[in-house]
Amino acid sequence: VNPNRDEVLGEKCYRNLSELPEVVDCVLIATPRELAVQNLEEAGRLGIPAAIVFASGFGEEFSPEGQHYEAEVVRIAGQYGMEVMGPNCIGCLNNVDKVALWGMLGADFDFETRKPGIALIAQSGGVCTFITAKQQLDISFSISSGNGSVTSIDDFIDYCVDHDSVNVVSVYLEGVKKPEVFTNALRKAAAKKKPVVILKAGRSALGTIAAASHTASMAGSERAFEAVFKRYGVVLVDSFEELVATTQAMNVLAGNFPKGNGFAMLNGSGGENTVAADLAAKYDVNLPPLTDEVKEKINAYLPSFGNPMNPLDYTSSVQAPQQICGLMECMAEVPGVNGIIMGSQALEETNERIEQQQKMFGHDSYAQQVDPLLLYRKLPGSLPVFLLPAYEDRRSLKHRRIVEENGVALLACSEIGWKIMQNIGRRAEYDFSWRTPEMAVPARSAKPRKGAACSEAESKALVAQYGIPVPKQANVTSEAELNTALAGLSFPLVMKINSPDILHKSDIGGVVLDIRDAQQAGKAMQTILQNAKTYAPAAKIDGVLVQEMAQSGVEIIVGIANDDVFGPMLLAGLGGIATELYKDTALSPCPVNHAEAVEMLKSLSAWPLLEGFRGSAACDVDALAEVMVQVSRMAAEKKDEWKELDLNPVIVYEKGAGVLAVDAAVVKYQDE
Amino acid sequence: VNPNRDEVLGEKCYRNLSELPEVVDCVLIATPRELAVQNLEEAGRLGIPAAIVFASGFGEEFSPEGQHYEAEVVRIAGQYGMEVMGPNCIGCLNNVDKVALWGMLGADFDFETRKPGIALIAQSGGVCTFITAKQQLDISFSISSGNGSVTSIDDFIDYCVDHDSVNVVSVYLEGVKKPEVFTNALRKAAAKKKPVVILKAGRSALGTIAAASHTASMAGSERAFEAVFKRYGVVLVDSFEELVATTQAMNVLAGNFPKGNGFAMLNGSGGENTVAADLAAKYDVNLPPLTDEVKEKINAYLPSFGNPMNPLDYTSSVQAPQQICGLMECMAEVPGVNGIIMGSQALEETNERIEQQQKMFGHDSYAQQVDPLLLYRKLPGSLPVFLLPAYEDRRSLKHRRIVEENGVALLACSEIGWKIMQNIGRRAEYDFSWRTPEMAVPARSAKPRKGAACSEAESKALVAQYGIPVPKQANVTSEAELNTALAGLSFPLVMKINSPDILHKSDIGGVVLDIRDAQQAGKAMQTILQNAKTYAPAAKIDGVLVQEMAQSGVEIIVGIANDDVFGPMLLAGLGGIATELYKDTALSPCPVNHAEAVEMLKSLSAWPLLEGFRGSAACDVDALAEVMVQVSRMAAEKKDEWKELDLNPVIVYEKGAGVLAVDAAVVKYQDE
Repeated sequence: VNPNRDEVLGEKCYRNLSELPEVVDCVLIATPRELAVQNLEEAGRLGIPAAIVFASGFGEEFSPEGQHYEAEVVRIAGQYGMEVMGPNCIGCLNNVDKVALWGMLGADFDFETRKPGIALIAQSGGVCTFITAKQQLDISFSISSGNGSVTSIDDFIDYCVDHDSVNVVSVYLEGVKKPEVFTNALRKAAAKKKPVVILKAGRSALGTIAAASHTASMAGSERAFEAVFKRYGVVLVDSFEELVATTQAMNVLAGNFPKGNGFAMLNGSGGENTVAADLAAKYDVNLPPLTDEVKEKINAYLPSFGNPMNPLDYTSSVQAPQQICGLMECMAEVPGVNGIIMGSQALEETNERIEQQQKMFGHDSYAQQVDPLLLYRKLPGSLPVFLLPAYEDRRSLKHRRIVEENGVALLACSEIGWKIMQNIGRRAEYDFSWRTPEMAVPARSAKPRKGAACSEAESKALVAQYGIPVPKQANVTSEAELNTALAGLSFPLVMKINSPDILHKSDIGGVVLDIRDAQQAGKAMQTILQNAKTYAPAAKIDGVLVQEMAQSGVEIIVGIANDDVFGPMLLAGLGGIATELYKDTALSPCPVNHAEAVEMLKSLSAWPLLEGFRGSAACDVDALAEVMVQVSRMAAEKKDEWKELDLNPVIVYEKGAGVLAVDAAVVKYQDE
Repeated sequence: VNPNRDEVLGEKCYRNLSELPEVVDCVLIATPRELAVQNLEEAGRLGIPAAIVFASGFGEEFSPEGQHYEAEVVRIAGQYGMEVMGPNCIGCLNNVDKVALWGMLGADFDFETRKPGIALIAQSGGVCTFITAKQQLDISFSISSGNGSVTSIDDFIDYCVDHDSVNVVSVYLEGVKKPEVFTNALRKAAAKKKPVVILKAGRSALGTIAAASHTASMAGSERAFEAVFKRYGVVLVDSFEELVATTQAMNVLAGNFPKGNGFAMLNGSGGENTVAADLAAKYDVNLPPLTDEVKEKINAYLPSFGNPMNPLDYTSSVQAPQQICGLMECMAEVPGVNGIIMGSQALEETNERIEQQQKMFGHDSYAQQVDPLLLYRKLPGSLPVFLLPAYEDRRSLKHRRIVEENGVALLACSEIGWKIMQNIGRRAEYDFSWRTPEMAVPARSAKPRKGAACSEAESKALVAQYGIPVPKQANVTSEAELNTALAGLSFPLVMKINSPDILHKSDIGGVVLDIRDAQQAGKAMQTILQNAKTYAPAAKIDGVLVQEMAQSGVEIIVGIANDDVFGPMLLAGLGGIATELYKDTALSPCPVNHAEAVEMLKSLSAWPLLEGFRGSAACDVDALAEVMVQVSRMAAEKKDEWKELDLNPVIVYEKGAGVLAVDAAVVKYQDE
């Protein structure tokens, strides 16, 4: 369709959409923004159900004009019930049904030679183009979602998770538009065991600014994304190379994924073997030790100066493919080994000179690298094999195809390759079955809402309703009330000012500890009220809170913070300076079950304190986890009413002796 | 020389070394170990000053035979005053004087086409071969040091640091043989500003430091290496690819190194720009913000939807080399920018199809990538330029040469490239001039030596001699002595058992706190002595230590641990659980100066506590640093006598109020 032409590339050209002889399935609009909006409206009127808009200069521009045009796209799509890809995108390639609705370099994607496998979905057209152009990638769909103000990246992810011709969903994500669609898609993928690999951009402060100016996406905290990804087994990567190479490895492994995070590694150089051991440790790739039986078998292959271990330096004395394959078989027998990593220099595009020289010396690095792998992979029950090159170099597409068709994953080089092994090991350990499937995404409000703090007494009463243990307490406003309260409490006591307006009670002299008799209690009450009057004259005073003083124990913070995108997040961490100095906290979407709560605690550097540190008794982790479960349920139920909740600290006692939330602060959304 | 031949490759062949018509400079021995040792002895007798031994099966074999042959090599070299490279090596290539004494693949190293620049020194022959074969590397020397029991890797590093034809010293290091030679070489390199890049292998292996006390167990040898490298500005890398690519970048930058850690980055894709912002943050690469002036200049180049920031997405609208060069000039004007990073896809070996396609669309990715860089680099005063590719791909050697000859460093891809920028940024900030040049490497003993602990009183007396403030104290053995002591001390007091045999005094009831009068003191003395008798009946009791109770403050551990290789290491960290749970400690070779001590403290996560945390007063950092300086001097002076020293804790008070070492433990080497 073009108003100025009668013919394009030999096909009849129509002046406008209305002239088209039929109602088409989708219109691809490749005009500047003003015309794009006009055409979109025309398409809507004609009943065309879908459109792709390439033009930039919409929401991402931050100008009044840009915002106006974006709003127009949303209005038109809503009015006519259309799906819209973009604006500010380059369209999509569909290599399952062989359709290109694509507007950039690589438009000539070769449907005949490229195989399906991966769904690539990116909020950046450039990224989509660059990655799709990589010949080594088997692509089912390549989708550039752009601003996504109508049909968003979340919808595309959802579609690809459901699609049977997709082995792996690979996403470049700057922000989520429809959190519920997004988390539901991830949940389905987890249940189906379909891997989702995401490069989440805008994770740093600077990156957030860059992402905002790129596709106008809403941020959400980095840690909330990580917590959601952890729940659903999403593989989070940090760079494009890691995204591409992890995705490709996952695609090669489809149907033959390792059963756990334990691998055997073989190297032909002692130096590389030593560095491999260091990098395996750095990236938490588990290399189980050899049994004596396996050692003995391996010794039969090695020279006298060889040393059987995992990782294994098979030394330059071992060259024959049969020998290397034999060593792979030995290593595969080690208990806990679920896959084999081969350190590899080769698979390069070798030049003639090197080839000649290799033949002169009787080496053929290609055959030496590839043949043992193919021999091994032909054995019944052979484990998945990974090639992990130590250097960047130039890996040949032809050789890659040969090994990949045999289920060998050729990773990116060096530390990126080790990161991919870490991703694969973690994914191999991931088990969705015991996790809470749903998460509480709240109804979203257009803008951030203010909160109003409850007093400590009120907060404690609220959490006590959910079975959270709190110290015995009473709020008193007079000496008479105090005396009545004292009758029901055991000394020693703590007394604190009770006011929603005074958050830092100690700072104004609003706390007295270790009160041992009624006389001290009376004096403390006077002092506290006097201090509040003097140092916080404007504060609303609900009274003085009298509570039994808790014995000391390990102090843990349990809290809820609302994320912009994903709603209530449960937080747990060691109290005191550790939280602030060492950022030693764990985060999870709400609600959590008991096992998830324990997993969060185990992820803390402070976990040894709870487990029993330097001979001290183990803490009541079950009771603490139960508090976390209750807090997370409470947060899920109150997701549209409560903004924040803090139990700081929960004191954890010895195993069987329970826990006590000695302070609590609930912040409710303020009605406006 | 070969007993079975008259001629080799057309040259006359001698039957043995003695038949040679002259005393040669160096003999390269390519025989098995037994003959190698015989030939070495013959060479020594003939007065040949140097030999290279290829054979394996020496010290690295761990068999009695292997150990015997290694000892023979050492004996012969000592007897005749020879230098020996190896055994278990592949020799060396000298591309300055054009000499190959080399025994593996790559023996045909092309002296005509390969340029000098880098000294590569590796303890692994395989590593040496693989890296030397990389055509992109400018190599001056390639040295495989092997077992190095005579002439060690330390000697080779020393030689290359001194050599004028070496721009960068690149080392694959498994261990140091001659610590003093090693550290002196690093010191010279630091003083000459010649970069040394080291891949230190075996970092994850359990440390070899004998760990009797608290600090010794934490100051593993890996950390000692890191501390030594930090002092001398050594660039420590984690993988072979990082070693190769960092070394090459440093060589390209020789004479044009950035002046500080601040860079401008430009990308042609918004997605890549966003991820670049995240990775810059992850790798501490500083990207200073644009000034309003620069923003205005940049806006003249960008479309309406562009957004001037650092990193800069110059959008696909900007394509002309002059425009990109213009943007580089703008970015170079930003205060604090010392170099320019270009995100780059290209410089690949493009295939024909892509080339055609690019021409069809009017793109030429090679010209687009390279031309602006060359235009920019030709400007007077232009900054160093780095190319940082987001993907592994295939970078062309030809294109690499073109840009590198113009001072543009082509980095490894993705996160490895960012790590290299981190290395370069840190190196740019490194300043040797204010650091302590020498470090105290002790006389080494053949085997680990036992230690004997001093009592607390003795330990405190020892450290007090170096001006370390300790609480007023007295050791008492009778009630009479106690009463005399009390006359000179102020209440409240602390009393502790004083015994070199009781390390954990509290555990046996050997400590009483907060003693407020003479009567309590008398009672405490009885209790402590009784408990010691009951719970540590075999311990030698020096008496009871009476000291003034210190006021509370921030508790810092200051200690010394002896590293197997580098001797006394100063350790500082936050006391209590932080040291063990969070490993929040800093380490440095001894001695340190005041500025180095402060740098150590600033590197702690706990630094905010000392600086004044959440409104609390700043601590007396100067007094604490002075204690560290004194402790490190003490350790340097006593390096051959003292094994360990712990001040745990040193209590740090408000600025101006000083510090107090409330506990001390010295462990001396035991005479055997």
